[in-house]
Amino acid sequence: MENKPYVIGLDLGGTNSVFGIVDAEANVIVSTSIRTAEQNDVEVYIDNCCKALAPLIEKVGGIDKIKGMGIGAPNGNFYTGNIELAPNLPWKGIVPLSKLFHERLGIPVVLTNDANAAAIGEMTFGVAKGMKNFIMLTLGTGVGSGIVVNGELVYGCDGFAGELGHVIVDRSPEARLCGCGRRGCLETYCSATGVARTAREFLSKRSDDSELRKMPMEDITSKDVSIAAEHGDRLAQDVYKFTGELLGRSCANFTAFCSPEAYVFFGGLTKAGNLIMDPIKEAYEANVQNIFKGKAKMLISQLDDAQAAVLGAAALAWKM
Amino acid sequence: MENKPYVIGLDLGGTNSVFGIVDAEANVIVSTSIRTAEQNDVEVYIDNCCKALAPLIEKVGGIDKIKGMGIGAPNGNFYTGNIELAPNLPWKGIVPLSKLFHERLGIPVVLTNDANAAAIGEMTFGVAKGMKNFIMLTLGTGVGSGIVVNGELVYGCDGFAGELGHVIVDRSPEARLCGCGRRGCLETYCSATGVARTAREFLSKRSDDSELRKMPMEDITSKDVSIAAEHGDRLAQDVYKFTGELLGRSCANFTAFCSPEAYVFFGGLTKAGNLIMDPIKEAYEANVQNIFKGKAKMLISQLDDAQAAVLGAAALAWKM
Repeated sequence: MENKPYVIGLDLGGTNSVFGIVDAEANVIVSTSIRTAEQNDVEVYIDNCCKALAPLIEKVGGIDKIKGMGIGAPNGNFYTGNIELAPNLPWKGIVPLSKLFHERLGIPVVLTNDANAAAIGEMTFGVAKGMKNFIMLTLGTGVGSGIVVNGELVYGCDGFAGELGHVIVDRSPEARLCGCGRRGCLETYCSATGVARTAREFLSKRSDDSELRKMPMEDITSKDVSIAAEHGDRLAQDVYKFTGELLGRSCANFTAFCSPEAYVFFGGLTKAGNLIMDPIKEAYEANVQNIFKGKAKMLISQLDDAQAAVLGAAALAWKM
Repeated sequence: MENKPYVIGLDLGGTNSVFGIVDAEANVIVSTSIRTAEQNDVEVYIDNCCKALAPLIEKVGGIDKIKGMGIGAPNGNFYTGNIELAPNLPWKGIVPLSKLFHERLGIPVVLTNDANAAAIGEMTFGVAKGMKNFIMLTLGTGVGSGIVVNGELVYGCDGFAGELGHVIVDRSPEARLCGCGRRGCLETYCSATGVARTAREFLSKRSDDSELRKMPMEDITSKDVSIAAEHGDRLAQDVYKFTGELLGRSCANFTAFCSPEAYVFFGGLTKAGNLIMDPIKEAYEANVQNIFKGKAKMLISQLDDAQAAVLGAAALAWKM
């Protein structure tokens, strides 16, 4: 066996690109980061990445010690290795990111979207270790998902499968407008921005007191709602109840698809703990078909927030 | 290589059990059937099956020529080989059908639910040949589904995955009651019984003329609706339009899950041809996320109605 005890994980976000050199036991040996934003020329971006990586690679004993590189990126396509039409990245169109890194580093490079990388991270290092069937839901600015069936990520015919944030959960004409151009997507309700939207709606519709009324309505973020809810603010708690119920009902439908052993939740909204998890569990069990009742576990990711995305990208490289 | 050129396929339905001995090119060499209904003792049922099979097995050269047996049955569980709590079969509780046949015939026996068998049939012998990602929807008395991801059937953690007929598509309080005890399942709208229900609703709500008004409302079946629609009856055609639109919108959500190369439709409702397929395609393209537009094929099964279920069961045996 070759002695290649490490992989490089890259969590490529709209603001920053975070690198870690990771061993097979999920230890991040060394890490660094550079800005993604404003790096409009992808060749320059790759240059900067390689410059930032060089001392890290040297520290672990050179490129010969590294098995490969995994990248988690918005709109990353596992099949092509391209980033395709990512609205929040500085590069337009189709960017052959895997190929560009491979040419520069000379090691195998594999890429997928951030939520899929998160799912692979959970399966390799996290609460889904050993599971063959589970659904990862990342509740951040948007709602992302990674679906594992028969031990494999679901990529579909084109590499774009697993877009559960864009399942339409409200077909009424007044359903919320989504960034994807349609109305009623799960993401418009169950993301951080969705929670803030719900809070503003509740504040407009209801007349009960709430500490959220002390701030300008447009400034309210999901974090404000979370803090108010922790203080016992009833309206803020109801926002989480509403969000959790919708998630639980939606998961009940997802189960009809692939009957997962578990749902793994990750991201800012999970910080609300039982305030969101209890309504998820209740609504799930109340809405799921009888044959599935009491089966799926509802789990919160236990991976360190700051490292989870890099670990997911690294896990992708380990799975090569 | 052993010379075992045949498998036995069993399409186990609530009324009849149909057997075929099938070769690897989907030729049904010999076939027979017995009654399932009223066979309350499963041991007697197995006896009768074996008696009916004996001359068929002899005709193809004896049991040594047979690689195995595949069974498609309602509530059949691939993992356990059991039929579990099937409401429309004469046996209550859990029936170890694979084991019982294996003990009697001495060949490997594998079992799955009828819609999964249909999907395997399409993948092996039908319009989905060579596809790694597709969704089979059987539009009969109920709505069944078989989902293929990465070339494998999706069974989930418990063997019950792929229940798309029980995805809830209408959450309004007046949504239709489903046999599963919940409201608003796809099956209550897009099955043969759903079509008849829609026709009755339209006849009650609307005042325009329709040949369906000539018969007692309670007697209307999907077949009557189909015949009227073929005659150009506007109300009957609108029933298919409504049904197809709901199917198309639902498929748009399913695509967010697994981005299939194709949807394969099978069963009575597909006889309406373009009357149902056009609204499916239109609603699908209008509702699916941009990145998936124009990708999924909407196909009607081309397998012979009378043989499709047996071929599916046989294909399951070939895949062993």
